[in-house]
Amino acid sequence: MAIEYDGTDFSGWQRQPNGRSVQQALEDALAAVTGESVRITGAGRTDAGVHALAQAASFKSSSPLQPRELMAAMNAKLPHDASILDLQEAPADFDAQRSARGKTYAYIIVNRRVRSPLLRRTSLFVPQELDIEAMKTAARFIRGEHDFACFRSARGSAKTSTRHVTQLDLEVTDNRIIIAISANGFLYNMARAIVGTLIEVGRGKIAPDDVRDIMSSGDRSRAGPTAPAHGLCLVNVQY
Amino acid sequence: MAIEYDGTDFSGWQRQPNGRSVQQALEDALAAVTGESVRITGAGRTDAGVHALAQAASFKSSSPLQPRELMAAMNAKLPHDASILDLQEAPADFDAQRSARGKTYAYIIVNRRVRSPLLRRTSLFVPQELDIEAMKTAARFIRGEHDFACFRSARGSAKTSTRHVTQLDLEVTDNRIIIAISANGFLYNMARAIVGTLIEVGRGKIAPDDVRDIMSSGDRSRAGPTAPAHGLCLVNVQY
Repeated sequence: MAIEYDGTDFSGWQRQPNGRSVQQALEDALAAVTGESVRITGAGRTDAGVHALAQAASFKSSSPLQPRELMAAMNAKLPHDASILDLQEAPADFDAQRSARGKTYAYIIVNRRVRSPLLRRTSLFVPQELDIEAMKTAARFIRGEHDFACFRSARGSAKTSTRHVTQLDLEVTDNRIIIAISANGFLYNMARAIVGTLIEVGRGKIAPDDVRDIMSSGDRSRAGPTAPAHGLCLVNVQY
Repeated sequence: MAIEYDGTDFSGWQRQPNGRSVQQALEDALAAVTGESVRITGAGRTDAGVHALAQAASFKSSSPLQPRELMAAMNAKLPHDASILDLQEAPADFDAQRSARGKTYAYIIVNRRVRSPLLRRTSLFVPQELDIEAMKTAARFIRGEHDFACFRSARGSAKTSTRHVTQLDLEVTDNRIIIAISANGFLYNMARAIVGTLIEVGRGKIAPDDVRDIMSSGDRSRAGPTAPAHGLCLVNVQY
């Protein structure tokens, strides 16, 4: 299934002992409809505050309901900040996490002198002027297949830190910068560390060319900070 | 000055004995910065829940602060759901309400089977399929200079109900319909009544051609209902 959610009031995708997670909201809705207590697997375990336009998730169910009926019934149980956009039957070996071939995230920056009340939940406010050309130059060094250890938070558990960033584009309209990042996989906090580094480049704190060195160093402390969660949105998952 | 606000948690523009208004938030910020207890006049008295990308407002002040300083100081006092985008000195006879030559509103409809969590505060969810061509045909009868009594709520106090709708366009992208309405002036609830009527046309409850008759009848009860406030946004004010 594909799920849209406003991450503001969720403690993230993953079920947690304390806190309101998207996974739990979905599992509760499924249980309420089918009576089944089933684990739902998400493609990306988005952090607290991260949004999704189309997170992907899978589960096993022996409910006799048709996918459309199940979707409507679960949507009726879900809170107002999460919604199932699509639900289909999948092959028995399909797993939303392991079967994913890639993911696309978008990060929204409001870059003007004053805050945007209407975008405050879904964007990062950066009042300093950003050098877009420098950010685009730095992005060129990040695109492609590399060891992304320098953009990896310590909490991550992936065995290798090599990933393929297939897209890293900046789209600038009015006072908004949208950074679109696609990769075959993301290390823990990798998307936000890339954005945080690009912002430091835009502010002139890191030279675009230095990004190449930072990447080959594999040193997380040399890259920019992890950008705040609320600017990030999981746009879609590729299979 | 130009002001952006998220109308969700405001009781509207206008100061009220009970309730949190945008006008009061601005007047409080001005008083906190300059010590002046001054009335701030808004171009449009938006209802509870209606948003603004650029509401216009004016006030008299004898503060020695430069406009830029005053704007920054007031923004520092404003709550997170309102923000001053621009503040400039104006001629002594300028009044944001009386001097306005026109206003533009946008109404956002999410037209798909399921709710949109990310747009829930700023759009109306309409799950039924809408006939866009029929809505566009109806819009043609509304554009122009007419007596808009049929789109006027009883609470309005304007002397005449003749207005000139200079723009009424539907833009459809993905599952979103944006209705842009510009006029030299709006009767009370007129924008929302026009949208409510267009939605009834889209649902097939009102024939496009009937909109002409409804308008000449001047009968509010024959037009569609007033569309909910949270889909409406004051985009800008023309001077």
